[in-house]
Amino acid sequence: MSRIAYVNGIYAPHREAAVHIEDRGYQFADGVYEVCEVRDGRLVDETRHLDRLARSLSELRMAWPVSRPALCVILREVVARNRVRDGLVYFQVTRGVARRDFMFPAHQRSSLVVTARSADRAALDTAAGQGIAVVTRPDNRWERVDIKTVGLLPNVLAKQAAKEAGAKEAWFVDANGYVTEGGSSNAWIIVGNTIQTRPAETGILRGVTRTTLLDLLAREGLKLKERPFKVGEALKADEAFITSATTIVTPVVKIDGKPVGSGKPGPVALKLRKAFHNIAELA
Amino acid sequence: MSRIAYVNGIYAPHREAAVHIEDRGYQFADGVYEVCEVRDGRLVDETRHLDRLARSLSELRMAWPVSRPALCVILREVVARNRVRDGLVYFQVTRGVARRDFMFPAHQRSSLVVTARSADRAALDTAAGQGIAVVTRPDNRWERVDIKTVGLLPNVLAKQAAKEAGAKEAWFVDANGYVTEGGSSNAWIIVGNTIQTRPAETGILRGVTRTTLLDLLAREGLKLKERPFKVGEALKADEAFITSATTIVTPVVKIDGKPVGSGKPGPVALKLRKAFHNIAELA
Repeated sequence: MSRIAYVNGIYAPHREAAVHIEDRGYQFADGVYEVCEVRDGRLVDETRHLDRLARSLSELRMAWPVSRPALCVILREVVARNRVRDGLVYFQVTRGVARRDFMFPAHQRSSLVVTARSADRAALDTAAGQGIAVVTRPDNRWERVDIKTVGLLPNVLAKQAAKEAGAKEAWFVDANGYVTEGGSSNAWIIVGNTIQTRPAETGILRGVTRTTLLDLLAREGLKLKERPFKVGEALKADEAFITSATTIVTPVVKIDGKPVGSGKPGPVALKLRKAFHNIAELA
Repeated sequence: MSRIAYVNGIYAPHREAAVHIEDRGYQFADGVYEVCEVRDGRLVDETRHLDRLARSLSELRMAWPVSRPALCVILREVVARNRVRDGLVYFQVTRGVARRDFMFPAHQRSSLVVTARSADRAALDTAAGQGIAVVTRPDNRWERVDIKTVGLLPNVLAKQAAKEAGAKEAWFVDANGYVTEGGSSNAWIIVGNTIQTRPAETGILRGVTRTTLLDLLAREGLKLKERPFKVGEALKADEAFITSATTIVTPVVKIDGKPVGSGKPGPVALKLRKAFHNIAELA
């Protein structure tokens, strides 16, 4: 079955799906995006993803490409047309096509691209069960990382460095030595009975999976400390893990080649991964 | 006459010129670009623009999409097909099309897009002769602004703020109060007989027009100081101006609403603008 993508009103074969060369997403990274997990054919935490999209658009004064209810319909249609039962749906909004000029165009015709793809849920669970290695990199990104823009080159370079070091994720470290977040995930540690992660007020994107995990921690009565941590603290922690829509909760077993805790995936992280979809919205 | 764009081997009508939705330029800002002035049908400082492109590609470990000599041919072809006598040629290279994943794709098939457009040289000269206003904005960009990437959203936002304040350019100011550069230009002041601009070693892109202007200053025996300056110094300066491939040398007459020098375009800046093409490469 060939894949189908949605591009500005058209459901097109993925291979032919294209945007104009003067789409501002291409020339200026003037665009934002979301990635939503699909599970049993349903969207995970769609409300929170759309709320965050709304915030990204508002911060950049970018128009909705279609209404929010229409977008919900399109997301489901793309998932259905690609027969995705487990996988993800990706949607990107840019400030549309205009003669190249830095200033906003006069029009308010944002572009919308939606794709979906399947994933092997069992294989992902097995991989996550083994834990991942991360490397640390200086956080050299711009200040507005709280907006989920497609300006991802620093993340690309950091994650490529991770790959070349045999790791799956890079943790950005700020000028004061504190971990901000991963290249495409949030970072957490567990010390004793306390789960710790950086507050979403500075230096990071407010992860949707992060927010839902906070709900889960509250429900389970687990102790949470929203405070930044240093790499040294993470290495001395009992467990470490990352969260994102695609990795859900995935244990971190190595940082810069050194073991975290026992060097094996932590039991609390694995328990949280298993429990996550009991609390996440499925729509 | 309809415009023609070059896209990955094809000369296409501009209106239909498109790239795939999974081009990494669109999803990750994983691309670089150059803008070259066209004057009397010839490319201005092409060698330096291509040298800088080579550096950008090298820093990002991105492959040339075609050989350098082939690119020279394509640039000329696009200029010719669009019958551009005076104007600009824009060329963008990205890490090509690949299934969305942060890490570099296995292939080395970079994308290449080239466009050209005409400009009214006399009108631009007249506008430049009146000088421009600039506003200042905190420099919130990533650390690698020395690479000319398409990750331009901070520049878009700064220049949009400038426009809304009735100005044509935004000057970024670093945490220590020093001007780094403009949203799409380099920043200069003249104090007495000394022309001053920030060294290209930190915080700015090494502008091609900037480099050629340094040649001109040397030839004319004008005194140069490569040292950062604060906004207060610029306001007390005799003249201020910007440089870029499209603005060449353009006087700055106002910063954040306050006049620079006499509040009129400076005579030295205007003289440099006139003399610029005597020293720039025309090929």
